[in-house]
Amino acid sequence: MNQNFLLQWMKQKQVIIPALLIEHYSKLGLSEQEFAGIIHVQAFIEQGEPFPTPDRLSERMSLTTAECAKLMGGLVKKGFLSLDKHWDNEGILFEFYSLEPLYEKLCTFLQSKEIEGQEKREEETAG
Amino acid sequence: MNQNFLLQWMKQKQVIIPALLIEHYSKLGLSEQEFAGIIHVQAFIEQGEPFPTPDRLSERMSLTTAECAKLMGGLVKKGFLSLDKHWDNEGILFEFYSLEPLYEKLCTFLQSKEIEGQEKREEETAG
Amino acid sequence: MNQNFLLQWMKQKQVIIPALLIEHYSKLGLSEQEFAGIIHVQAFIEQGEPFPTPDRLSERMSLTTAECAKLMGGLVKKGFLSLDKHWDNEGILFEFYSLEPLYEKLCTFLQSKEIEGQEKREEETAG
Amino acid sequence: MNQNFLLQWMKQKQVIIPALLIEHYSKLGLSEQEFAGIIHVQAFIEQGEPFPTPDRLSERMSLTTAECAKLMGGLVKKGFLSLDKHWDNEGILFEFYSLEPLYEKLCTFLQSKEIEGQEKREEETAG
Repeated sequence: MNQNFLLQWMKQKQVIIPALLIEHYSKLGLSEQEFAGIIHVQAFIEQGEPFPTPDRLSERMSLTTAECAKLMGGLVKKGFLSLDKHWDNEGILFEFYSLEPLYEKLCTFLQSKEIEGQEKREEETAG
Repeated sequence: MNQNFLLQWMKQKQVIIPALLIEHYSKLGLSEQEFAGIIHVQAFIEQGEPFPTPDRLSERMSLTTAECAKLMGGLVKKGFLSLDKHWDNEGILFEFYSLEPLYEKLCTFLQSKEIEGQEKREEETAG
Repeated sequence: MNQNFLLQWMKQKQVIIPALLIEHYSKLGLSEQEFAGIIHVQAFIEQGEPFPTPDRLSERMSLTTAECAKLMGGLVKKGFLSLDKHWDNEGILFEFYSLEPLYEKLCTFLQSKEIEGQEKREEETAG
Repeated sequence: MNQNFLLQWMKQKQVIIPALLIEHYSKLGLSEQEFAGIIHVQAFIEQGEPFPTPDRLSERMSLTTAECAKLMGGLVKKGFLSLDKHWDNEGILFEFYSLEPLYEKLCTFLQSKEIEGQEKREEETAG
């Protein structure tokens, strides 16, 4: 091993996953494969590739290209991922994934849980 | 939503996943389910539960308790996870998972890849 | 360099600083020295030392022990840091710093900024 | 507070600071102001502004524009920061800061510390 190797490790991007997402993704209806898919999309976004193709995903996952295409399609269809587009100054179309729908779902879930908890506490106090 | 809710989000633990692990776990022989299992173990370690039971894992995963037990067993058997123990001052036994074997595997893999790349470059220069 | 060294780097704790705190700490009234002090407190908390003494801080900062004591005192006095206590099962007192007051201040600041922005947009629409 | 506000928080970039840097920056010869400057540069790089001007830095720091210019100049001069350039396809010059020199210094420091530790252990064993 040489110093280059350590510098490569030091300089790598890192992906931050909120503990509340790890704790609750399965209650939102995500499988482990879908959760891993979400992490890959976030990692690609952070390295400047906001619209990874099934081919690119398949290089990093234990799934075939067709399975990756199906996985992403499913995440979009179930409302965890959105595929947005914008045109740049020269009229070229860019497509990119957004994880905002996932965070909206998580946000709504956490709030409903909190309200439930409050009602429970009020009932206990009242009772 | 109230300020408590935002504070809860602000104060949550977050789990950092190295991009090089996300990029290469499948080449190390991990499936997406096993990769998710690794993330759960890391999250539990960081919240002070270094030896989550299959029951605890099952609460957060889309798997049954038996499936979680099998998943962890497989990770230990395949050498990605180790189960270590220590005795505290009062002679009580503590068991805890360590992800060190995974990082050793990743480290070895990245180095062999780097050496391969160097040899390739040298051959090209020589040729 | 050897593999142990890389593993030490891989296994180290890392401290996550929200971009919104980096962007706005000086508007909250914190100096760079105080901001650095906050980061040290967070790093100590994450490594399981929630009440670092001025001596411990001084080992890591370019300040003397007395200057570190003054820095922490100032952060508590200005309401960015609180010094909380709890008694464990055996009646032993534990003291620990909490960064919750800082996050409450940041939260209030960001909200007032957002309301200001909304009013501005409404005025512009009305005008 | 509304949901937009929480989503803004959820979606913000976050800056990861290695614990080993927090622990040792002052031994590398950095003051707290310089350490804060480093964090700002990293935050700007991650939000896609790799060459923040003194004006931009001053908006976020408790320093004047002139003081920020001096701070950055000092970091470059002392070899913690480098100012690199590249030309894009259309021949336009881009300048950007790199933190690589800082990580090289940290790397060298940690290794010399480790070697020192080893020698000490060997002496003790020999003695």
